[in-house]
Amino acid sequence: MNDQHDSLLLRALRGEPTERRPVWMMRQAGRYLPEYRAVRAATTFLDLCKTPDLAAEVTVQPVDLVGVDAAIIFSDILVVPEAMGMHLIVEEGKGGPRFPEPIRATGAVGRLEQGITHRLQYVFDAIAETKRRLAGRVPVIGFAGAPLTLAAYMIEGGGSKTFDIFKNFLYAEPRAAHELMDMLARELIDYLLGQVAAGANMLQLFDTWAGLLPEREYREFGLRHASMVLKGVRSAAPDVPFIYFPKGVRSYDGFPATGASGFGIDWQTDLERAVREIPEAFSLQGNLDPVLLTTTPELIRKETREMLAKVPPGRPYVANLGHGILPHTPVENARAFIEAAKEPVECNV
Amino acid sequence: MNDQHDSLLLRALRGEPTERRPVWMMRQAGRYLPEYRAVRAATTFLDLCKTPDLAAEVTVQPVDLVGVDAAIIFSDILVVPEAMGMHLIVEEGKGGPRFPEPIRATGAVGRLEQGITHRLQYVFDAIAETKRRLAGRVPVIGFAGAPLTLAAYMIEGGGSKTFDIFKNFLYAEPRAAHELMDMLARELIDYLLGQVAAGANMLQLFDTWAGLLPEREYREFGLRHASMVLKGVRSAAPDVPFIYFPKGVRSYDGFPATGASGFGIDWQTDLERAVREIPEAFSLQGNLDPVLLTTTPELIRKETREMLAKVPPGRPYVANLGHGILPHTPVENARAFIEAAKEPVECNV
Repeated sequence: MNDQHDSLLLRALRGEPTERRPVWMMRQAGRYLPEYRAVRAATTFLDLCKTPDLAAEVTVQPVDLVGVDAAIIFSDILVVPEAMGMHLIVEEGKGGPRFPEPIRATGAVGRLEQGITHRLQYVFDAIAETKRRLAGRVPVIGFAGAPLTLAAYMIEGGGSKTFDIFKNFLYAEPRAAHELMDMLARELIDYLLGQVAAGANMLQLFDTWAGLLPEREYREFGLRHASMVLKGVRSAAPDVPFIYFPKGVRSYDGFPATGASGFGIDWQTDLERAVREIPEAFSLQGNLDPVLLTTTPELIRKETREMLAKVPPGRPYVANLGHGILPHTPVENARAFIEAAKEPVECNV
Repeated sequence: MNDQHDSLLLRALRGEPTERRPVWMMRQAGRYLPEYRAVRAATTFLDLCKTPDLAAEVTVQPVDLVGVDAAIIFSDILVVPEAMGMHLIVEEGKGGPRFPEPIRATGAVGRLEQGITHRLQYVFDAIAETKRRLAGRVPVIGFAGAPLTLAAYMIEGGGSKTFDIFKNFLYAEPRAAHELMDMLARELIDYLLGQVAAGANMLQLFDTWAGLLPEREYREFGLRHASMVLKGVRSAAPDVPFIYFPKGVRSYDGFPATGASGFGIDWQTDLERAVREIPEAFSLQGNLDPVLLTTTPELIRKETREMLAKVPPGRPYVANLGHGILPHTPVENARAFIEAAKEPVECNV
């Protein structure tokens, strides 16, 4: 039984009557908060991820400071490939994370280490410590990167405008690409169930690079392996909602069969279209453009209310941004978003 | 009367019976060709655009070297803002073009110069010189950037991952943004009709940053001003096909009313979906993933034939890539694409 069964977030995700919509923000524990920057200044990004006390501290910050309805564990999607033996360098704000020795040959896939979930004990410890600190105030969200998105980084070696190297690998060596993503899917199922065992009340699978591939190849490589993870986890932990967030997808063909309980909608998509095209049984989450949070509290309030009005009262829905909050967002603007999202709306009643 | 009325390209765009599909490539006059690099080495990018003899030389190169069915005039979309008085710096391959003094205040919009088409005489001269060199072999395609895409560069000051500054301007100052894009639309109509007068047989409007905005804002700011340009040009030059290429759009709502005669489809979109969702009267162009052209001739042939098979025989269609050819594409791979696209298919017969 999910210990946050009666929380606003989980009630809303089940489609039960609530007095208002729940809200949180992707990257809510992050650089826009001075209190995060203070913790971060004394350590490295990866040490912050790997020190449960510190990770728990920054995870809880947005609950206290901006009033979100859930805490998402502070971590990085790339700790999984690191645990599989890949050297990872993260210099926050300096071109993003990179793997100096990326996968460039099909043979390198077989040399990755498997059964590595025990190496991620620090994430489980951080979740447990976060739960202690929160003492039941709000649910804790666990997460991982989807196989496609992880493979993109592991093969390309870092961020890229077009991810040519990754796509070339995938086009030229589809079998090795599938092998890699199958392997990732197996590790991710274990890893996410470990997060649930440690106390995660909801999960999110980030497929940040879902838009890198043509629609057909995305369904073949991305959706297929994301679905393995979603189904594998959900069959073992059916009372833990699991949101799939495929940023940049063009259509939702095949989504109802993925195993997800709901979908994160990115900022480019018209939320009304998502409401129409994704069957009613699935919850929706999103999708304010994070750039809007760099404007004014007045405009943020107006746009947030318009966003909420796009979702019919009976639809399970969680207010959020349509991508991570930008580092230069003023904290008062983040608060304006959370406050506007919290104003009562007719929902599920 | 269009002097290339009976060319394969124009016959295909009218939906007349042809023995095969026409084909060209976005950025076909470009860095992947050693012959282009040789011309470019002796000059700057902007001087190449502004010297009609040189521009015509590189424009014709892909007709001779890879066998495309049309020549697109070598130029840059940003010569229009430059002609409006903005200082433009282009260092090809070094982070792209930039405006060191971007538009950052609403008052700066009114200070842009208008009625500037005469300053772009070098483009018209390059088209005329290209026509002389081609002597009727293939049609010449003229082009411009759409108002949204030009405004994005003019306000942001250069390329950017998220175009925060531009989007912030647009969200916070929608009236000034509309004023700027209206002004651009008026200049673009004159400019494109000047290209037609100089001999352009077909036109393309590049809306490279159509995907920067949420769907609703794209329709309000992007589609609306693109449509002004499309309708303005088409009413004065109805026998010149005019393709609108909005890279990154999620849906084609409102497209039939834009005034375009056809649409460029980007590589992410499933061409079969575009065939289904865009009414039959409109021609389609695209959409092989340019990254595929960095793989092998065998794979390129296979994928190109599969692409052609997605378009029903009676549909007006032009084979192309789904974005510009990448600079590191081997020339033999570009040829493999053109040759595969040229193999006879049942079309319009």
